Amino acid sequence: MKYRIEHDTMGEVRVLADALYGAQTQRAIENFPISGLRFPRAFLRSLGLIKSAAATVNGKLGELPADLAKAISEAADEVASGAHDAQFAVDIFQTGSGTSTNMNANEVIGRIAKAHPNDQVNRGQSSNDVFPTALHLSAALLVTGELLPAMRGLNAALAAKAAEFHDVIKIGRTHLQDAVPMRLGQELSGYARQVELAAQRVEAALPGIYEMPLGGTAVGTGLNAPPGFAAQVIAELARSVGLPLREAVNHFEAQGSKDAVCFLSGALRNYAVALYKIGNDIRWLGAGPRCGIAELRIPESQPGSSIMPGKPVQIA
Amino acid sequence: MKYRIEHDTMGEVRVLADALYGAQTQRAIENFPISGLRFPRAFLRSLGLIKSAAATVNGKLGELPADLAKAISEAADEVASGAHDAQFAVDIFQTGSGTSTNMNANEVIGRIAKAHPNDQVNRGQSSNDVFPTALHLSAALLVTGELLPAMRGLNAALAAKAAEFHDVIKIGRTHLQDAVPMRLGQELSGYARQVELAAQRVEAALPGIYEMPLGGTAVGTGLNAPPGFAAQVIAELARSVGLPLREAVNHFEAQGSKDAVCFLSGALRNYAVALYKIGNDIRWLGAGPRCGIAELRIPESQPGSSIMPGKPVQIA
Amino acid sequence: MKYRIEHDTMGEVRVLADALYGAQTQRAIENFPISGLRFPRAFLRSLGLIKSAAATVNGKLGELPADLAKAISEAADEVASGAHDAQFAVDIFQTGSGTSTNMNANEVIGRIAKAHPNDQVNRGQSSNDVFPTALHLSAALLVTGELLPAMRGLNAALAAKAAEFHDVIKIGRTHLQDAVPMRLGQELSGYARQVELAAQRVEAALPGIYEMPLGGTAVGTGLNAPPGFAAQVIAELARSVGLPLREAVNHFEAQGSKDAVCFLSGALRNYAVALYKIGNDIRWLGAGPRCGIAELRIPESQPGSSIMPGKPVQIA
Amino acid sequence: MKYRIEHDTMGEVRVLADALYGAQTQRAIENFPISGLRFPRAFLRSLGLIKSAAATVNGKLGELPADLAKAISEAADEVASGAHDAQFAVDIFQTGSGTSTNMNANEVIGRIAKAHPNDQVNRGQSSNDVFPTALHLSAALLVTGELLPAMRGLNAALAAKAAEFHDVIKIGRTHLQDAVPMRLGQELSGYARQVELAAQRVEAALPGIYEMPLGGTAVGTGLNAPPGFAAQVIAELARSVGLPLREAVNHFEAQGSKDAVCFLSGALRNYAVALYKIGNDIRWLGAGPRCGIAELRIPESQPGSSIMPGKPVQIA
Repeated sequence: MKYRIEHDTMGEVRVLADALYGAQTQRAIENFPISGLRFPRAFLRSLGLIKSAAATVNGKLGELPADLAKAISEAADEVASGAHDAQFAVDIFQTGSGTSTNMNANEVIGRIAKAHPNDQVNRGQSSNDVFPTALHLSAALLVTGELLPAMRGLNAALAAKAAEFHDVIKIGRTHLQDAVPMRLGQELSGYARQVELAAQRVEAALPGIYEMPLGGTAVGTGLNAPPGFAAQVIAELARSVGLPLREAVNHFEAQGSKDAVCFLSGALRNYAVALYKIGNDIRWLGAGPRCGIAELRIPESQPGSSIMPGKPVQIA
Repeated sequence: MKYRIEHDTMGEVRVLADALYGAQTQRAIENFPISGLRFPRAFLRSLGLIKSAAATVNGKLGELPADLAKAISEAADEVASGAHDAQFAVDIFQTGSGTSTNMNANEVIGRIAKAHPNDQVNRGQSSNDVFPTALHLSAALLVTGELLPAMRGLNAALAAKAAEFHDVIKIGRTHLQDAVPMRLGQELSGYARQVELAAQRVEAALPGIYEMPLGGTAVGTGLNAPPGFAAQVIAELARSVGLPLREAVNHFEAQGSKDAVCFLSGALRNYAVALYKIGNDIRWLGAGPRCGIAELRIPESQPGSSIMPGKPVQIA
Repeated sequence: MKYRIEHDTMGEVRVLADALYGAQTQRAIENFPISGLRFPRAFLRSLGLIKSAAATVNGKLGELPADLAKAISEAADEVASGAHDAQFAVDIFQTGSGTSTNMNANEVIGRIAKAHPNDQVNRGQSSNDVFPTALHLSAALLVTGELLPAMRGLNAALAAKAAEFHDVIKIGRTHLQDAVPMRLGQELSGYARQVELAAQRVEAALPGIYEMPLGGTAVGTGLNAPPGFAAQVIAELARSVGLPLREAVNHFEAQGSKDAVCFLSGALRNYAVALYKIGNDIRWLGAGPRCGIAELRIPESQPGSSIMPGKPVQIA
Repeated sequence: MKYRIEHDTMGEVRVLADALYGAQTQRAIENFPISGLRFPRAFLRSLGLIKSAAATVNGKLGELPADLAKAISEAADEVASGAHDAQFAVDIFQTGSGTSTNMNANEVIGRIAKAHPNDQVNRGQSSNDVFPTALHLSAALLVTGELLPAMRGLNAALAAKAAEFHDVIKIGRTHLQDAVPMRLGQELSGYARQVELAAQRVEAALPGIYEMPLGGTAVGTGLNAPPGFAAQVIAELARSVGLPLREAVNHFEAQGSKDAVCFLSGALRNYAVALYKIGNDIRWLGAGPRCGIAELRIPESQPGSSIMPGKPVQIA
């Protein structure tokens, strides 16, 4: 393989000749050979969107020449689109601030746009505000774009089954012992309601996620960012993704804690607990066919045994 | 000690002569010698309030004679007041449904009011709806009566310190390394905002807690409860505690899952994480006096050493 | 109530007139109104045993006059016996080092023995080595005296059932679906083996628990403890409880980490996971009687319903 | 892309023309589009080793013709070597038993060796014993081959630093407050001992990991496996990897629980807790350079800021 020599404040680094990243990314690749896990698509999309919006606003504010701002923005859009995912080769277990991956983005975009990674691509930004902003933005994109629609779909499917099975009378159990009769549709309506409530709880966590730490720069004071910079970048982001993003009320909280993410994690845990209960119930109600409860017949999805090849398995 | 003989569906049981509880409570005391932990005050208060409101409504609906309903309600109010806490001697680790403690309440109230524990005190109810209702109600009482006021008090105290220390310039740190200047007031304002947001998140979990499972009886169908019973009991409860309690939208969800409590637990965890961060910061900022960071001087609360008696300790 | 005035390095404190504890305990009672939980019996027994052994060794080494050493040892034995548990009124959530409860013991013993809490009862000791030593000792006493015998009893009971049910052929299940035949005795033998292995794992955690931090005093260096003091105290403790206790190999590890306890917690978690699996299996195999799996008939323990009074409950 | 048609008990499946896997793998790829995570190298190595040893023993026992046994064994060795990792395309979140990945291995090996996946490659085996055996074997290989050597290396490095810094006197702290002097070497010796003990605890979990579930087949009874098959396969495996592997004492425990893995997880957690404490201490002791504790100077690893480019970061 062929290499080129790059430089940073600590000296020379050897980088693959055709890599778009530079010295700091290379150091981080070597410093963190930990998990093999890379940042997921939604995060890299968010990082690209932030860099693009920041360049656009830097151009408007006269912080960068218009053509350079445009070049940075376009290169960042390429990162957002996924065209350069392979260039993000730093492990997710790295510096706590995410400096390495922020610099990875700065270096890749800088090389494409012929801009300086720190002074121009990263202008008005710090890893300490960009990174949690990308974290919030990618969570917002995944929750609104994938999770909530899937939850609504599951809720609708369970509600449809509840209606379909309204007339099926079955035993209701307490302590797993036979108790009194109920409808199978009622049981399923309870699952549907669990999912509906879980979705409301995930939504209750979104306002905190929409608060963007951007604008605090290194320690929350906004040092090195021009007045109004963050508000304009966030407005640009909100427009481009169609979500009610807004600047954090307090930048010291927004950078110093990850509480909004912690609360979202609590809402996701709540959904996981609900799914576990529903899945476990269905699994047991489908146990059989002859020596189990066998109240539900679950469609066969694939052969279910290597030693008893005719035995199918249902995927609840 | 002197004993009397009580009976239940399984036969004779020996009970302390002056105990207010009866056979089923006694069996449960013997069956669950597990942790030594007892139900806390707020739970017993809630259980008493539910029994009292249920008796009142049973009287109104003609399910119980007026004088008996009144006697049960008054006895239940005594339980709610804490007068009989010592009679609740069953371990908190017991039957999953809480049947033992529900029957404990029924027996104690029944003995005081000269009413039948199952047919009259428990009329229209099941452990399976009473118990999660008591769980929700006690959580609602503690959160609104104690936790949220304490959170608002802490928020105000931190905000006051933020104002007081506005003019103190200090180092801001990233990766625990010296970075750029900031105000001590700004740091404290971040803590205040963390607590403010944590309170909002706890409040976001309350609507689910206000949904009362009462009315589902054994398995959610409401078997054995007269029409409108639960709605009236819950309205009575809401009036007596001054909280917007309402009947669960779906009783199968309300009894079959504890998701609302799980979500509240996520909100409490979020607050715990915030407090841990704030407490840990203050502890480190107060480390010293001569060989630590020593940015904060924390008032001395008590002698802090058994081997170095003059050494005080601060309680952050 | 009547009070007396006590003093410590911070000044005057008002204490209940007949309390055996003094000023520092009183301050801690007031400073930590947190959980209402108190140290359990095994911990207070351990704390008393340590104080008694320390006094005996201080007497032998000439650090204390013989009659005072004897008086302290006898008073500490009273604490160990449980005679003064009500005097230990400080919440378990307190100073991280346990200084408050160590001083509580020093004050109670000192008052009974007419000895100085710090200079004489606590002689050669620090909260920082006494407290983790009491933690290890109480864990060792509970694990060897209660947990392991109970595990062996459960193992034997399951093994007996495995033999008893050797001839019962039942369905074996995979994915909860009917698979191929097996013996009920085989299933139970698997549970017995789980418990046997769990006991071996708990035993594997004991050597670390037997390592006593005592001797490190404040920060691990042993400052203020006479040479050989800890080794003799630990030998005295080992003799009195009949366990192979030994001095920690490295006092900085022994005081600076709680890893031995963490590992024991892992072994207990492993047993909890095993019990959960066994209990859950038995619960499901006993589901019925007519609409469940009903492979096992579990003896009835108590009435199991408040709304269906004839319905019993089994306790797996 | 070109496809071929494969068959299983449920009918036709379209598979990529050059895939080594067959119908069941393809169904599982489609049924589980969950995490994107694939089984790691050590697991696939273990699965290949088991299949190879099983074929060798099947040949010796006359269960398979000698040349076919040899062909299967050689193909399985290729899987073990990593040559076909890309053919293992089923998500790690799949059927609970791992049937899909076991069949993936059977299909890949069967295609290379021209053998039937179920009747010949999987002969004498079930997913239910192969999969937990592969889990144990891969854990044994990683723990003995990578983790324990790394732990010993860290212990040695810390012990060397403890010796190097023996003469450095520093403050010892209690409650993060200045207390009494100690040596920096003593502090580091405590860390070294933590790592030494953590390694002993990981080793204490290995005997359970060395117990191989192989031989139980579908539900623990060993149905369809010839007498002595598992013992010989495990002996072959033990020889090839140089570890004291042995057949499980009780196959119902070995397949019905994952307790041995749970206990190893407890030992790993213990090490994680130790590393967290050590890392956190070092991070704080290195805080500075001018406004922190700054007792340690940690070598610079890479530039540590995007907004303050000259600011280096240390990796503790």
